[in-house]
Amino acid sequence: MPDRPDDFQKFRANLNEEILGCGHLGIKRFFALDHQAYEPGAIGTKTKELLGLVASAVLRCDDRITYHLVRFGEEGWKRDEVIDALNVALIVGGSITIPHVRRAFASMREINGLKNS
Amino acid sequence: MPDRPDDFQKFRANLNEEILGCGHLGIKRFFALDHQAYEPGAIGTKTKELLGLVASAVLRCDDRITYHLVRFGEEGWKRDEVIDALNVALIVGGSITIPHVRRAFASMREINGLKNS
Amino acid sequence: MPDRPDDFQKFRANLNEEILGCGHLGIKRFFALDHQAYEPGAIGTKTKELLGLVASAVLRCDDRITYHLVRFGEEGWKRDEVIDALNVALIVGGSITIPHVRRAFASMREINGLKNS
Amino acid sequence: MPDRPDDFQKFRANLNEEILGCGHLGIKRFFALDHQAYEPGAIGTKTKELLGLVASAVLRCDDRITYHLVRFGEEGWKRDEVIDALNVALIVGGSITIPHVRRAFASMREINGLKNS
Amino acid sequence: MPDRPDDFQKFRANLNEEILGCGHLGIKRFFALDHQAYEPGAIGTKTKELLGLVASAVLRCDDRITYHLVRFGEEGWKRDEVIDALNVALIVGGSITIPHVRRAFASMREINGLKNS
Amino acid sequence: MPDRPDDFQKFRANLNEEILGCGHLGIKRFFALDHQAYEPGAIGTKTKELLGLVASAVLRCDDRITYHLVRFGEEGWKRDEVIDALNVALIVGGSITIPHVRRAFASMREINGLKNS
Repeated sequence: MPDRPDDFQKFRANLNEEILGCGHLGIKRFFALDHQAYEPGAIGTKTKELLGLVASAVLRCDDRITYHLVRFGEEGWKRDEVIDALNVALIVGGSITIPHVRRAFASMREINGLKNS
Repeated sequence: MPDRPDDFQKFRANLNEEILGCGHLGIKRFFALDHQAYEPGAIGTKTKELLGLVASAVLRCDDRITYHLVRFGEEGWKRDEVIDALNVALIVGGSITIPHVRRAFASMREINGLKNS
Repeated sequence: MPDRPDDFQKFRANLNEEILGCGHLGIKRFFALDHQAYEPGAIGTKTKELLGLVASAVLRCDDRITYHLVRFGEEGWKRDEVIDALNVALIVGGSITIPHVRRAFASMREINGLKNS
Repeated sequence: MPDRPDDFQKFRANLNEEILGCGHLGIKRFFALDHQAYEPGAIGTKTKELLGLVASAVLRCDDRITYHLVRFGEEGWKRDEVIDALNVALIVGGSITIPHVRRAFASMREINGLKNS
Repeated sequence: MPDRPDDFQKFRANLNEEILGCGHLGIKRFFALDHQAYEPGAIGTKTKELLGLVASAVLRCDDRITYHLVRFGEEGWKRDEVIDALNVALIVGGSITIPHVRRAFASMREINGLKNS
Repeated sequence: MPDRPDDFQKFRANLNEEILGCGHLGIKRFFALDHQAYEPGAIGTKTKELLGLVASAVLRCDDRITYHLVRFGEEGWKRDEVIDALNVALIVGGSITIPHVRRAFASMREINGLKNS
């Protein structure tokens, strides 16, 4: 039911290119800041991606949940760690986040390293 | 445009089974608590389903609106009662809830007992 | 820590008078619609107040929680019914609603009919 | 990936007709108030549509973003003005609004007067 | 009941100084982007402040509502224009925004140019 | 302007005792689940507290931000790590979170281990 991670990535890349080329400096700078927020600082990238996932889950945004799940493979998070983080989001955000947790599990079916083995 | 109630129910059942079997005790317990919240207590189940619908509508979650609408047939709520509850959600939540009210009306077209007769 | 129900009611009445007298027809009509949403319809006022409480709790608005709690005395809801409704809000809205549930319990200390006896 | 503006408009018109004909006076009056909120008052319609767009974007509602974008052609807003307003929404609402900004750009591809020329 | 605009401004200035001096480049840049979002672009500052007010009202943030109200005097918005914008926020955001509209009216009592004359 | 951490802790403890003693099993169990969500699992407590902080910040809840800040001392997080996490919340949640970031900095002034030295 949710868009597949691959389709989402293509749509995302295509539109990001149009947005970054639209000539608005504020938007361009904000996209850069958003990118930099996950670079290593006092906290490392691996933990920051987890912060991004939980923030996206309690704010109930499927697109950003998928995005962080895709990044998790690259950062080396394991399936049970992702699930433990989703539990924090579920408890903080309540049962209204359940549909998004369901779609996160559906997305994990297609992401190497996060599949149910 | 919205997913049909039948498709949603299948997707929901399939993923819930995976989530409940994932081995995380906290998630399993929260799903149980979510279920128990609608069992008869000081307030009866019929009224609690209505509380769940209005909470889902003001939080703008189509999946949970559909879920409660499907349950309404079983609990015996009538179409005009559901509409009166949606009005409370609309006034509390404002015009940003209108798209969800529209999709609730679209879902009711396929739910016995809530169809426009 | 929360404003006491009496102080809130005075502030509310004073400002509502200014707003309704400000000459904007749209605002005046919306305040009327908000009032009418809780009048008896397909669903009775007593249940509608409960819907209003749960909607306010999941949207995390202390002022409207207090307002509905004050109305509950007039509608005859009992303390254990209010608590059962707050549980639905807590499960739907998650632990982020806990501070509001706490303030609801603090407000109930000062509302006849809802006090812990 | 998002519904195309034309499909959305048809679904919207079809369901609005059913809702307005459902016999609930409160819902009917609220739909009227929602319409009137964008009519010329102390502030003109053109600016009000922009307020509606930004409100819809920070509340992350694709349907209402699309609706206001369609209206923009009629009101004469230009692409760079819409983008400047979306930047305000992006800064106020944060990166969680990015997926909606992306879908707004995708919708603009199909709206005369807002296309990238 | 709400903090008075003068007290809010002092608290805001004091803490902003600490935050901007805390040495985190990302936070510093975001504060700059937030400031720049209201500078003249395809849309003028006067309209952008109005966008900021409505965004803050539907997201129900008293601090930012107060901030934009204080700025309105400088930008030359009139009381009836502010009220017309608050009506858009009220209709989009629903009755859950009423407490914030009340506090906006309370703040206007202390802001030159927006007082009820 | 925000409540001081000490006063908040007293109010919190006093009301939690009343809520846990109110006899509603669902509420009692949810409070237990909320507590357990931060116990060591696939992810450790230290990281989970950070997840709780960011979730609370993007959901804009001062009480829970304060609560997690108080816990940080016990878990050994450093001021610059907290600030780096607040930056993620700020970028994800946008400028509407700034007032809460300000109050987080104000709270840190009174928490040993997080003070500006």
